[in-house]
Amino acid sequence: MAKIIKAHGSGGQYSRELVRDIFLKHFDNQALAELSDAAILPLEKGRIAFATDSHVIQPIFYPGGNIGKLAVAGTVNDLAVSGAVPKYLSCGLILEEGFDLEDLEKIVLSMAETARLTGVKIVTGDTKVVGHGEADKIYINTSGIGIIPENVDLSPKNIQIGDSIILSGNIGDHATAILLARENFTVHSTIQSDCHPINAITEKLIREISGVRVMRDPTRGGVVTVLNEFVENRNFGIRLFEETIPVSQEVMGVCEPLGLDPLYLANEGKFICIVAREEAVKSLELIQCFDRGKEARIIGEVIENPKSKVLLRTQLGTDRVLNVLSHEILPRIC
Amino acid sequence: MAKIIKAHGSGGQYSRELVRDIFLKHFDNQALAELSDAAILPLEKGRIAFATDSHVIQPIFYPGGNIGKLAVAGTVNDLAVSGAVPKYLSCGLILEEGFDLEDLEKIVLSMAETARLTGVKIVTGDTKVVGHGEADKIYINTSGIGIIPENVDLSPKNIQIGDSIILSGNIGDHATAILLARENFTVHSTIQSDCHPINAITEKLIREISGVRVMRDPTRGGVVTVLNEFVENRNFGIRLFEETIPVSQEVMGVCEPLGLDPLYLANEGKFICIVAREEAVKSLELIQCFDRGKEARIIGEVIENPKSKVLLRTQLGTDRVLNVLSHEILPRIC
Repeated sequence: MAKIIKAHGSGGQYSRELVRDIFLKHFDNQALAELSDAAILPLEKGRIAFATDSHVIQPIFYPGGNIGKLAVAGTVNDLAVSGAVPKYLSCGLILEEGFDLEDLEKIVLSMAETARLTGVKIVTGDTKVVGHGEADKIYINTSGIGIIPENVDLSPKNIQIGDSIILSGNIGDHATAILLARENFTVHSTIQSDCHPINAITEKLIREISGVRVMRDPTRGGVVTVLNEFVENRNFGIRLFEETIPVSQEVMGVCEPLGLDPLYLANEGKFICIVAREEAVKSLELIQCFDRGKEARIIGEVIENPKSKVLLRTQLGTDRVLNVLSHEILPRIC
Repeated sequence: MAKIIKAHGSGGQYSRELVRDIFLKHFDNQALAELSDAAILPLEKGRIAFATDSHVIQPIFYPGGNIGKLAVAGTVNDLAVSGAVPKYLSCGLILEEGFDLEDLEKIVLSMAETARLTGVKIVTGDTKVVGHGEADKIYINTSGIGIIPENVDLSPKNIQIGDSIILSGNIGDHATAILLARENFTVHSTIQSDCHPINAITEKLIREISGVRVMRDPTRGGVVTVLNEFVENRNFGIRLFEETIPVSQEVMGVCEPLGLDPLYLANEGKFICIVAREEAVKSLELIQCFDRGKEARIIGEVIENPKSKVLLRTQLGTDRVLNVLSHEILPRIC
């Protein structure tokens, strides 16, 4: 099986073959085909969103996706929750010498498919090869540019007391799928990562609902981390209602014996949306119209007191504070 | 000395401290301070340039720079040679567990200084931490956005027979400095990498010279690789004149005994510019007005025959074909 060698990162003949035979073949578009140092792109006057994410997930192939799908969906989702329509992506690869070219092509193909699904173009790229033991197979950085529609201005600053908090679907699927896919776990399960672009849902939401305050995708650190960022140093708090949090039976079955709380686990195809209370039901129904929004729920509300805290109203009727964790539950989850 | 731990990449408390104490401290700007998933940026209607580069250089500190300076200058230069005015950068870090926080701060500081020098803002970022032995200290991806001024349209398609080829200064400094900085070399030398932003020169050049056809920075693969990309499948060739190629005595002193040809070596603060012959002298004088353009020379011309080849007219008066290399001379040079 053909392997990556250092010359694939040299800028010379092997680099050119790699670009032609794998990247241009799958990421077919005019801007990329120019193969210049930067892609030249038309843009309307206005505001853009610009996001970057490096992906180091282990294992690189997992139930429900692979590092390529993740790299495209991850950056597309960062743009989407900013209120932008994703347009252009870059692709920066760091490859370990000896990495399978066949695996690389599978990953690139998956990037291309995910890009097509979302309407973004991968317009510029870079490949570096490092020695054996200087990376773990493949790391992918994707940076992205999106267009913010006129009058859209999402920000935690817009949050008001009384607002509703919507979660777009079941949480914890990505993290538990990755955990179980690692070689030291032998539990059999059908859990798949939720890794998927969400921009179709967010674009419709901001087009049709005027009361959207802010959106975020709960990746590393999960729902709790995102909500704590919203309340930090603000004169309001957030209360979640435990019985409304959507978690699948299968994910609970993995989390409970391991002592993991799904509210802290990474997701790769979900978003949190804070909306004006009077538009919460309409927003929820809109999200639920999408296949990947069927399990969406209103999970909480913005409250006046206590300030700067995220509370969970448990099924026993007591309140528990949800603090940000200081340690890493699952390294290399994305 | 404080070290990177996995929790610095968790999205939790340690991540937030790292962002606050190191990134926000040095990359101080409003768009980044929002700490959202994507930076929101104003933009005039028109065309943008979008570039990405992952930096895996070894060693990370070297005479004349470090991986941080390189990461900013590298992407700024990719935008600059596209004819763009660089505006915004992203910064995606992959850190090895155990990496010195003090070294990280030195690198970040150097990125901030280089960004200030060039007028770009680092507006969005991401940090991942991988285990010991899963990266070599630190890898940095920078992606960048620049604005293309109206009427600027640089492309190899513009090249015409008779055009002049200008090189902005001495070649080979970066590659030889890195080579000598590696632990297996004990040669004493004062060679410094030329790692530096070139956008001040390129911006003035495209403002004042209407006959600029195309520019490129000869990084990996050097001058020969760039020129071969220009002539590939075209109905013209390029002839360089050996005696005009600017190379310092010190670099020649390292290259000759090792059998290295400076025309194939990486540079990080130089550019090649193809201009209409009648504007070549004016262009050269403009470049030479800059400190980092003093050694600029007209090194060759676009010729009708042979087509699709790069020739070197040697000091003996004979022509030698300069082909692209298929192998990697110096891995992890940038």
